[in-house]
Amino acid sequence: VNAEGRVRDAAVSLFAAKGFHGTGIRELADAAGLSSASLYHYMGTKENLLVEIMQVSLGRLVRAGHRVLAESAAPVAALNGLVQMHVVAHALQQAETIVVDNELRSLSSAHRSAVVALRDEYEGMWRSVIEGGCAAGSFVVPDPGVARLALLEMCTGVAYWYSPLGDRRLAEIASAHAEMGLAMLRATAGPGCLPAGHYVRLVAEVWGPAVAPRVGA
Amino acid sequence: VNAEGRVRDAAVSLFAAKGFHGTGIRELADAAGLSSASLYHYMGTKENLLVEIMQVSLGRLVRAGHRVLAESAAPVAALNGLVQMHVVAHALQQAETIVVDNELRSLSSAHRSAVVALRDEYEGMWRSVIEGGCAAGSFVVPDPGVARLALLEMCTGVAYWYSPLGDRRLAEIASAHAEMGLAMLRATAGPGCLPAGHYVRLVAEVWGPAVAPRVGA
Repeated sequence: VNAEGRVRDAAVSLFAAKGFHGTGIRELADAAGLSSASLYHYMGTKENLLVEIMQVSLGRLVRAGHRVLAESAAPVAALNGLVQMHVVAHALQQAETIVVDNELRSLSSAHRSAVVALRDEYEGMWRSVIEGGCAAGSFVVPDPGVARLALLEMCTGVAYWYSPLGDRRLAEIASAHAEMGLAMLRATAGPGCLPAGHYVRLVAEVWGPAVAPRVGA
Repeated sequence: VNAEGRVRDAAVSLFAAKGFHGTGIRELADAAGLSSASLYHYMGTKENLLVEIMQVSLGRLVRAGHRVLAESAAPVAALNGLVQMHVVAHALQQAETIVVDNELRSLSSAHRSAVVALRDEYEGMWRSVIEGGCAAGSFVVPDPGVARLALLEMCTGVAYWYSPLGDRRLAEIASAHAEMGLAMLRATAGPGCLPAGHYVRLVAEVWGPAVAPRVGA
């Protein structure tokens, strides 16, 4: 990992553990193995670093979401894929998830709009799958908007409790979420639904070496 | 509201908005309308204040959970009640939820154990309802432990997106979550299930004046 990568990794860990405001420049330099002076060669402001972390993280989710939908167009198979990809990606990127979830408030409004636009693009995929499934009679829900928010909270939440040292394999957790997510919409997995292992590989491809070591878990 | 109450309210807002580490003593004093010197008459350390906020918040959830289960013993009715109470309580206590969720990491280990014990007591109620319902054949899930975590993440998540200015009434959101939560467990609301209005009133009673003004929403 080069110096830029070390700075980014240190920032993700520190922002997740101590918050953006709780992280000092000197700590960031220490964690990246750089002096405070040389740190400025590798980053702009602390806020630039935060924006980049969020844009990279949400950009990968958007890319992975497009791949899921390109493979599985029918609502039941698409929802099965979005749930499993989202669960695997968040379980393997716990620190990034905490930073994206908690630190939107720390961005100035211009930066916030760019990050929110990416998040909206991603959530739009979930919206169209859920609304399309309701229109086609594949899903039955009290309120498609509330169902989208509830599914996203349930699946993102895995980042807050998953441990690679726990009793359950990640693929089992992803698969249980897909089954429960479809049940929430009064649907059941069908023959077009791909298994969890497929989405573990998809996440490893989109996220790259950062998550690869844990993918066998 | 007396000075202690003003200090507590200011701390909840500031810890939620800027994080525990990001909140300075002087800001806390300013927000509570006190001088930094007189602030120390009304609080111990900043960590004591955080522990108290978490214990009060989790203590109310435990009390409300016991009331729900005392009224509704059968698994379907009990789950309907826990989901609705939890959604209403978290939607009306957004800042407290953010503090409880994010700042456990900021507690020293002795304080953390006391807070975690309360959280475990509350989650134990969900565990026994879900496991009891599976044993009785009322619920069918791939994994009762994953189902508990998924339901809690889904219901707590309402605190992160609910707005009293939004299109949906809180009672409708609570009721949609109960319907989807039961569907996740392959169950459907039955005649023993109490409506959302009941749980809005229960939360208003347990939480008291802090949430009362918004309860009509």
